[in-house]
Order: sequence, then structure tokens, then C-alpha cells
Amino acid sequence: MSGSISPLAPKTFADMPPLRGVRMATAAAGIKYKNRTDVLMMVFDRPATVAGVFTRSKCPSAPVDFCRANLPGGIARAVVVNSGNANAFTGRKGRESTKMTAEAAAKAVGCSEGEIFLASTGVIGEPLDATKFSGVLDSLAASGTEDFWFEAAKAIMTTDTYPKVATRTAELGGVAVTINGIAKGAGMIAPDMATMLSFVVTDADIPAAVLQSLLSAGVGPTFNSVTVDSDTSTSDTLMLFATGAAASDGQTPVTADDAALDGFRAALTDLLRDLALQVVRDGEGARKMVEITVEGAESDEAAKRIALSIANSPLVKTAVAGEDANWGRIVMAVGKSGAQADRDRLTIRFGDIPVAEKGWRAPSYSEETGADYMKQAELVIAVDLGLGRAKRTVWTCDLTDRYVEINADYRS
Amino acid sequence: MSGSISPLAPKTFADMPPLRGVRMATAAAGIKYKNRTDVLMMVFDRPATVAGVFTRSKCPSAPVDFCRANLPGGIARAVVVNSGNANAFTGRKGRESTKMTAEAAAKAVGCSEGEIFLASTGVIGEPLDATKFSGVLDSLAASGTEDFWFEAAKAIMTTDTYPKVATRTAELGGVAVTINGIAKGAGMIAPDMATMLSFVVTDADIPAAVLQSLLSAGVGPTFNSVTVDSDTSTSDTLMLFATGAAASDGQTPVTADDAALDGFRAALTDLLRDLALQVVRDGEGARKMVEITVEGAESDEAAKRIALSIANSPLVKTAVAGEDANWGRIVMAVGKSGAQADRDRLTIRFGDIPVAEKGWRAPSYSEETGADYMKQAELVIAVDLGLGRAKRTVWTCDLTDRYVEINADYRS
Repeated sequence: MSGSISPLAPKTFADMPPLRGVRMATAAAGIKYKNRTDVLMMVFDRPATVAGVFTRSKCPSAPVDFCRANLPGGIARAVVVNSGNANAFTGRKGRESTKMTAEAAAKAVGCSEGEIFLASTGVIGEPLDATKFSGVLDSLAASGTEDFWFEAAKAIMTTDTYPKVATRTAELGGVAVTINGIAKGAGMIAPDMATMLSFVVTDADIPAAVLQSLLSAGVGPTFNSVTVDSDTSTSDTLMLFATGAAASDGQTPVTADDAALDGFRAALTDLLRDLALQVVRDGEGARKMVEITVEGAESDEAAKRIALSIANSPLVKTAVAGEDANWGRIVMAVGKSGAQADRDRLTIRFGDIPVAEKGWRAPSYSEETGADYMKQAELVIAVDLGLGRAKRTVWTCDLTDRYVEINADYRS
Repeated sequence: MSGSISPLAPKTFADMPPLRGVRMATAAAGIKYKNRTDVLMMVFDRPATVAGVFTRSKCPSAPVDFCRANLPGGIARAVVVNSGNANAFTGRKGRESTKMTAEAAAKAVGCSEGEIFLASTGVIGEPLDATKFSGVLDSLAASGTEDFWFEAAKAIMTTDTYPKVATRTAELGGVAVTINGIAKGAGMIAPDMATMLSFVVTDADIPAAVLQSLLSAGVGPTFNSVTVDSDTSTSDTLMLFATGAAASDGQTPVTADDAALDGFRAALTDLLRDLALQVVRDGEGARKMVEITVEGAESDEAAKRIALSIANSPLVKTAVAGEDANWGRIVMAVGKSGAQADRDRLTIRFGDIPVAEKGWRAPSYSEETGADYMKQAELVIAVDLGLGRAKRTVWTCDLTDRYVEINADYRS
């Protein structure tokens, strides 16, 4: 609910098609504030298959625990998302609250509690009064519509300055299928407000186990390759649902994560990257978007570790904010990561500009060229370690005075 | 060379006694700017024993490489420290430059190049013109005095807002010995300016191997337990020298790192902590000092990992800057560290105030109490994991708009 839209926001929003098999509606349940939309309900009239990946935090929220417990069932009938309260670090009361919400949702939809999935964002450590849901879930389940994606994306915003939506199509089993997704998140985390959530739905007919393997593979180079501030939420949740509606068009059943899924897999990864980059573009206080590629690494893990070391370095991020072509800070961030690097083989480029090579400033590089490059809103930093063949890309934003302002002033 | 002194600066500076066996002097060699003190030389008229710990960066500066190579010799006759140029990421020219500087210093003092130690801070990636040293080292070696500690500390300042000095005495081998130290550093790193350097000298008579074991043990709970911004310099250097002058007072020789050294070991660790905390108190833009203790961990390593996860979290640090008792962010930082933690056993205290216990807000805690506490300039955050007996303390400062200003604006 910030004032002005991020300067890095996409120029246009995707035109979100209805997606067969899922209906959505929102309500103001008064969880924290009166008369503010704070609940989104997604309903699958026929059982959808489900996959999920969640925060790796050792202190996960109660809804994350709840979803993890239901995931092996593989079936979803409804998702309830609320803002205003994260139901995190709420102990036994938190578990009671997820149970009560799931009971109300299951009753509204006519299914078991094991087919309900939950996500909450908002204040941490405050009990979430689940009785507030019971009044609204019946009518949400009844009134949801298929053409509600953009509204749904808006409903889950917190410090986000714009709604995040994406849609893709793919060919699967002889028919065209659609994938729609929404996301929210602006810091990778602010337990009070900015937890990352994303819900993706396809009308394809895909078994839960296959769906999970697609999602687990897809999240690595996308949501797990973006960072705003290196902080990880107690509530981060990414779920993928398949309604199976395309079966009625004659979609051939999919039985394993095989070559038949190539097109779908590519479309899904593309959509996940799209949503993940929209999250970075809305990083709290962000004015610049930075793509960081590390290649020539001995392993994928080393490449990613070094890329994230650069992406999370406060000194790199403040240099970007100040449009300062301070490539020495990149050398520093490579050196500190702990992953294998050899100073004297290191090459650094800003876009197409060679900045450093073989442990030394590139002969052709000038401060002026670098300074000019840094004025762009979208930067590409490439590091070649010269050690091996592994390569990874991550995305981040700059660290501005506005980030400090947002996060130092929020609750006071 | 910042404008105003950190509000966290010590109220008084230690009165630094002369230390027998080491003389120091400074000069303006014009390395980057004219008429600015930029070289400090320490001379040991009789060979001193030496120990050192250096940055763990995979991209160390040429002087760090040079010191590491000389350290096994165990003998120091002179140290040359310059500002204005870090001689980092300077390739072959960097090595030539350290060699030339060491040659000039060795000639001035009358020793081998293997008895010279070097440290440089300043711009990274620029060749360091070592010919500038040759004119000044002879006269520095000749003119140095024993009563120069405070001046020496001032001479190595860069973004520091005050000089960092400390002195201790201890009983060793039947006589009183002194330990003097100076340090500089304001970000844990800014390759252009704020690399951490510290030089400590004692008049005790201690073999190099013993000195190294004392220093390696002493650095863990001191310099390696402070963080300003999680960034690690290419040039971080901490060296300890023993002139042996106390032998003439009748100090019994020390042959191993044994119980006879207990008093000295304690005094050294105390001095290292003093200097390390002075570095944090001068953290770029810092307005608050934060001590973070994690206890009840399964291992020392886990305790420290979680403590540093809290200390380096941008969201914790901005909350401190905003005097926001946002303890949910501490839960977040505990959860994200990767070390073993159990949400439902977690206890958090601000000073003596119980904030959270057993995975839930403490019943006695109120927002008002927390908000009042956060107004203090010096904060103590304690986390009990409730899993084991290991405990570690680290120190950090807040993340303010001024940090962003300093690091975004420096070169532009």
C-alpha cells in the first residue's frame, strides 16, 4: 500500500485470461483493519492436484506447517490467503487458528480439511482470530469467478507498489493449456508485511507427483535466484495447482515428468521467472534492477553462491544506488563468498564493457565508460571465474535510502 | 575523514604509554593526495617476533599475500602502512610494488625483505607507485619515536571518525608487560576506503609460534565477532608483534602456549575486543551499538551462525535504526540462518525484558516496554535456543540512511 509505483514496474500488465476450474473472490473480514480487503479464497470445484515449495526457515509460520502437512495428499479444493496477520510465531494458538480456518473452508466447499491450503501475511507474533473467517468463507466459496486474476493479485499486495500477474500457454498432450500466476512480495521478507507468496494454476491435467517435480525444478533458477535484501520470510509460499480441465479437451494423460512435458516445463519456468523478476522490480526502495551472471565456476553451487554474495552485498548494492561503477566491490564480494575463486583469473564485465580481466583492470576500461553505464535503470554484471564451465544468474535491486526509510519507519 | 564523530565513540581515549622496542613515524608521500599523511612506518630496532591473521577473501590484496609469505619467518623489523591505494586487484604490478616497497624498507632499517610487513588501504585496482615510498622510508626509519601511538592511530584513519587505540598490562614470567594496539575500519570493508587494519605490539618476550597461537585464538571472540555490513575486505589485516624488551627486566622465557600465559592471554583478548568494538562503534552511519548473544545452541558454530544471521540482517538493522522493537525480525533471522533452531523453544530478551518465549510472545511483554528499550543507544539482544549449552556473542550496529549515503555517494 505504498504511495508511488516502483520506477522499475512493468510498463503493462499481462491480460489475464479466465482459467477453467478455479474461481476466486475476496472479502474484508476485518482481520486487522476495518473495510480493507484482507481475504482471498480460491476454490477448485473439482479436486485439483497440488504442489508447493515453502520457506526454508526453521521458524515457519503455522500456515506453512499446515500446508506442508496436507501436501502429501496431493489434492486441493480451496486456498485461503489473508493479510493483516502472519499467524507466525503464534505457538499452539497458531495451530488452532489454522485448524479452525481449514474447518470453515472445508465446510464452505464441501471437502476435507486435508484438501485446504492456507497462507497468511501481516503482523508476526499476534494471535490470528480465525472466527473472523467463518462469516465470509461461505459467501466467498459461492461467489467466486474465474475471471478474477488481476483482482486477486491486487488483494494480496502489502508493501507491493503494483500487482504481479503472469500468464503463459503451452501445448500438452495434444491440446493447448494455460498457466496463470500471481505473486506478492517486496522485501524478500518483512515479517510484518512483505512475505513472498505466489499462487500458480494451470488447467492442465497433471498428477501431483509430476507437478511437484516440475515446481521443485522450476523454482531454482527463478524464485530461488532473486534477492532483495537476503532476508528470508517465515511464511514464503509458492504453490502450483492443476485443475485438469484440459482433460475434457482431450489432453492425453501425463504419467511422469518426461519429454512430453518439455513445452509445459519451459512455459512454467518462464512464468515463474516473470513473477520472480516482478518481485525484484518492486524491491523496497528499488530504483535499479541488476542481473548478475557468474560463469566459469567449478560447480553450479559455487556459481550461485558467488552470484548471491555479489547480489546481497550492501556495498555493491549501495554503489549501484549511487551509480558508482565501483567494481572493486565486486572483487570484494567474489572474494568473500567462500566459494572457489582465483583472483588472477577473474574477468568482470558491465553489460558489454570489459571492466577487469586476469586479476587487473581491463586496459580498455575507463572510469567514464563505467560511470555512464551505471546511469541505466537495468544493469547486467557478468563475472567469469575462469575455473570451470558452470554458470548461474541471479537478480537483485539496489539498496537505497528509501529501503532504510521503509524498514526503519514502518511500525513507529 | 568524515565530518562528525560517531555518537557511539568512546568518551575518552586510552592514554597510550610508549612501548619499548618499537618506534613509529608518519609522512606524506603523495600516494593519492598531496600534503596528506599517508604512510606509517613502525620500526623494531631489535628483531620482534610476529603473528598475523588476514582476510579470508579469495581475492586478497598484494600486501596480504606478501605478509602471508613472510609470516613463517617469524621475525619483523618494520611495518609499512599506506592509505590512498589498497594495492588490491593489481596483478603482477601489485607484486612488483610490494617487492619494491619492502626493498626500500629493508634498506632503510638494515634487514632482509623477509622481515618487512606491509598493509595498504585505499582505491582498489589502481597501480600503487612504490617509487613514492623510497624517498620517505629512510627518514621515517631514522625519526620514529616510541611515544607515537595516538598519532599512528590517527594516521591510518580513512572513513573512521575517531582514532582507535587500546592498551593493557599483564604479568608475564615475573614482570609487568604492556600491550598497545591501534585499529582502523568503519565498514567491515569498503575496498576504496574502509578496510579493517590493526597492529598490536607488546614488549613481552614471546616466540613467534606461541604469539600466533595466542592471536589465532584471540581473534575468534573479538575481531571475528563484529560485523558492520557483512562485507569482508580484500585487505583485512591484524598483526601482533612482540619486541622482547621485557626480557631485560628479567622476564622468564615462554616456551609454549601454557598456563603461564593466562594473564597475558586474557589481557590480549580484552584489548582485541576493545579495538574490535571501537570499530563497530564507528560503523559507517551507526547510531546504535547492538550486542547479540545466542545461547542454548547445539554447538558454538551454530550459536555464532545464528548470532551473525541476526547481526547481518538488513531488516533487523533497519528496525534498530528506527527504534522499532520488531522482534518478529529476530525470529526471521534465527529461522533463516540454516543452523538448528526450534521455533517452539525459542526465547528472546531485549536487555532484561522477556520478549518471546516458547514460540510465542511473552505474556508480560508490551509494545510500550519494547519501544522504550529501543530508544537506548546501546542495545542487548539475547536469544536462547533451548537446544544445548553453546553460547556466542557478536556485536553490530544499526543500518541507517547515513550508511547508504556514505556508500552510495563516495566516489560520485
